[in-house]
Amino acid sequence: MAERDEIRPGVQDSLRRVTELLHKHELVEGLVHRQQGPRQELVESLVHKLHLVELQKLLDRQHPADVAYILESLPLEQRLIVWELVRAEREGEILLEVSDAVRESLIAHMDEQELVAATERLDTDEIADLAPDLPSEVIQDVFKSLSPEEREQLRAALSYPEGTVGALMDFDMISIRDDVTVEVVLRYLRRLEEMPDHTDQLFVVGHAGELKGLLPVNRLLVTSPETAVATVMQPEFVKLHPHEKAQDAASAFERYDLVSAAVVDGGGKLVGRVTVNAVMDYIREETDSDMLTAGGLTEDEDLFASVWRSVRNRWAWLAVNLVTAFIASRVIGLFEESIAKLVALAALMPIVAGISGNSGNQTITMIVRALALGQITGDSARKLFAKEIGVSALNGLIWGGVVGLFAFLIYHNWQLGAVMTGAMVLSLMLAAVMGVTVPLAMQKLGRDPALGSSVLITAITDSGGFFIFLGLATVFLV
Amino acid sequence: MAERDEIRPGVQDSLRRVTELLHKHELVEGLVHRQQGPRQELVESLVHKLHLVELQKLLDRQHPADVAYILESLPLEQRLIVWELVRAEREGEILLEVSDAVRESLIAHMDEQELVAATERLDTDEIADLAPDLPSEVIQDVFKSLSPEEREQLRAALSYPEGTVGALMDFDMISIRDDVTVEVVLRYLRRLEEMPDHTDQLFVVGHAGELKGLLPVNRLLVTSPETAVATVMQPEFVKLHPHEKAQDAASAFERYDLVSAAVVDGGGKLVGRVTVNAVMDYIREETDSDMLTAGGLTEDEDLFASVWRSVRNRWAWLAVNLVTAFIASRVIGLFEESIAKLVALAALMPIVAGISGNSGNQTITMIVRALALGQITGDSARKLFAKEIGVSALNGLIWGGVVGLFAFLIYHNWQLGAVMTGAMVLSLMLAAVMGVTVPLAMQKLGRDPALGSSVLITAITDSGGFFIFLGLATVFLV
Repeated sequence: MAERDEIRPGVQDSLRRVTELLHKHELVEGLVHRQQGPRQELVESLVHKLHLVELQKLLDRQHPADVAYILESLPLEQRLIVWELVRAEREGEILLEVSDAVRESLIAHMDEQELVAATERLDTDEIADLAPDLPSEVIQDVFKSLSPEEREQLRAALSYPEGTVGALMDFDMISIRDDVTVEVVLRYLRRLEEMPDHTDQLFVVGHAGELKGLLPVNRLLVTSPETAVATVMQPEFVKLHPHEKAQDAASAFERYDLVSAAVVDGGGKLVGRVTVNAVMDYIREETDSDMLTAGGLTEDEDLFASVWRSVRNRWAWLAVNLVTAFIASRVIGLFEESIAKLVALAALMPIVAGISGNSGNQTITMIVRALALGQITGDSARKLFAKEIGVSALNGLIWGGVVGLFAFLIYHNWQLGAVMTGAMVLSLMLAAVMGVTVPLAMQKLGRDPALGSSVLITAITDSGGFFIFLGLATVFLV
Repeated sequence: MAERDEIRPGVQDSLRRVTELLHKHELVEGLVHRQQGPRQELVESLVHKLHLVELQKLLDRQHPADVAYILESLPLEQRLIVWELVRAEREGEILLEVSDAVRESLIAHMDEQELVAATERLDTDEIADLAPDLPSEVIQDVFKSLSPEEREQLRAALSYPEGTVGALMDFDMISIRDDVTVEVVLRYLRRLEEMPDHTDQLFVVGHAGELKGLLPVNRLLVTSPETAVATVMQPEFVKLHPHEKAQDAASAFERYDLVSAAVVDGGGKLVGRVTVNAVMDYIREETDSDMLTAGGLTEDEDLFASVWRSVRNRWAWLAVNLVTAFIASRVIGLFEESIAKLVALAALMPIVAGISGNSGNQTITMIVRALALGQITGDSARKLFAKEIGVSALNGLIWGGVVGLFAFLIYHNWQLGAVMTGAMVLSLMLAAVMGVTVPLAMQKLGRDPALGSSVLITAITDSGGFFIFLGLATVFLV
């Protein structure tokens, strides 16, 4: 697609220009509403049209990904004005590019016919990507319009769950037989009008469709024409399976610097390919959703979502934190008598809990990353455990000493300072033990250690920190 | 490189096998130390060698990226045993693949000669990537071994700071003249033994070296040989500049699905190219370091770093949090009298501060992401502000109601419940205002809003939450 459109990095300039034109358009709209004379109306409606025509021209020149960016950056009302101006034949590829939340907002304003028209032009793997957001009648209509082979592909693509190689796969590959010469291949290629995007290699298959090797396009160019494909192809290569985790495919692309990779079924038959652009999009979406999860958002939120939608997107995390805060509050409640006797405890207790939480999160960040990279074996787990305990004990002495001194300077009570220091050491060690144990345990239980580990560790260090500090204080001071 | 090595996704199996062999090796070492008889010694030393030989064979078969992975996953002592077994000619490419922290640990155990030998075999852009970690004598020796053209390239590559397009760039491109035919190009290519990795397009340059267009390799294959390059090349394309931000290059690759892109200087002269694998590595490193920063680690930490190194890597964050915790503690200190009179306040105050912190972080996550994508214009900033205030007011009423009820149920004091609810509403609105203002202000001041925004907001919501709750309680309850 890229070749057809003007490509320029200045998409932010385009966004600025779009906003300008929309403003002018809105100003004129306002005038039209105020001045109702028929003559005036005509003039204004002409000017008004002029802006939209210019806007449409601007949009036509943009790459689909850039139109998607502009749509995402506009509040809903303006977004829909722009969407109206997008030509029908480009709607499908733009819907593929926008974020899930924005796609929903656009699809909600399209009728069935428009949706079918937009979807029909796409490749089957792309239709499968849109499918979860489309009404089922639209899918059925699109399905009817496909050739039997394409229907088979769409059925296959729809059968792979998100997060698998199958969901990243496309069918846009060139396969050749191993018993021909390079010259035959070159002649075959010359008959094609253009080759699919990201064709860095051809797939060499045997009689039964089994994948025998890869023929890099670049090797094709430097090989003399009479050579047999079988002698020049690469017989060793990365094979992906449709049910494999997409994450594994992404690591393979990163490690081996691939542009495309073959997907084969259990019997070694070529079923599709994965390209680096699909992998990049996958990585971007993954890190994006990791970041949102870490920030406490359930899913991708439209920047201009309604207040009510946002509240719904954010409630789950707040509810979880409310529960952990209630628990911490009850832990403090246990020691109300001690606090009443020595009110300084109330002012000092958040320090212990806060620093332990931070230290625990440092540990958990290390461990979760190492787990994600598969770097932790039974042997190294023990070493890591010992290391984290060591780090937290040392940190406890250093920072515990500082906070102890702080407590002494403010309250002129050296026993209070000593209790602070002791509480810090114990509490940081608790954080270290939990920081290693929690993600390892979640991994063992088959859960993703990246999800919720941080909440859990903060809950533990909060309640634990309060308990240790107030408990020590009750024993030694009150 | 990829073609030379056996590629298999089962790198974790290899890691397991390496650990096994290392264990056997260590067991034998242990035996040798205990049993000193000369006969016994000979036998054991043979067995011992056998394991290392097998280990070396295993390593030889691995892709450099996989050897890097294995090195990263091993504790220092075992890592160095494995590193000893890596063949000298592969050391350079493996050093390129390992993480910064692990690279340091390996380089620290190599002498100057080894380092020069490892570095000399690399491309100039790769030497530039290693340069920051190499002793200056090594760089000088390597420099002397280069051709004048390569020296120029290395000098250029070293001159671009990290995070720029220049730092991602390589010089491994094929450029052709625009006044020849496709046939001439094909003949020229056939004379090359192999084409550089990721050559999806040739760069068409004019007499003065100015870049005139791109000729996709795939187009070359489907075009008849007598066509002139000038008529078949793409005259519109993405141009990167060496001083541009690497982030912008990454967005261009993601949006336009590129495999390679031209880098041109101010005069439009071709100076290098960026490939998708360099971009993927950059994206991985960026998200990795974002994740580490979010977790409170200053930089990439070797999983098996010493306790002392880890303490140093983590101290900055803990120190910052200590300061904010001290401030919060002093805010509570202001209200010690009120707490002494109504000790329930001590148990309830962390709830207000905690929930506000979470809500503020949700807001900031949204805003930082929108800023990173460049989606916030003056107009939309106002809309976002209004939306976040709305969300927090609604959340304040909902969750404030819940915590108010909680307070009432536990302490049977409806005024206390009402103060809790009021404090939650105010405190969540403070979090929303700060969640929008802090990142926007940091952006205005030319700082990265992703760095430190979260610490700042938590500091504000902690102290602010305590102040609002205890302040309201002092006015209305005590």
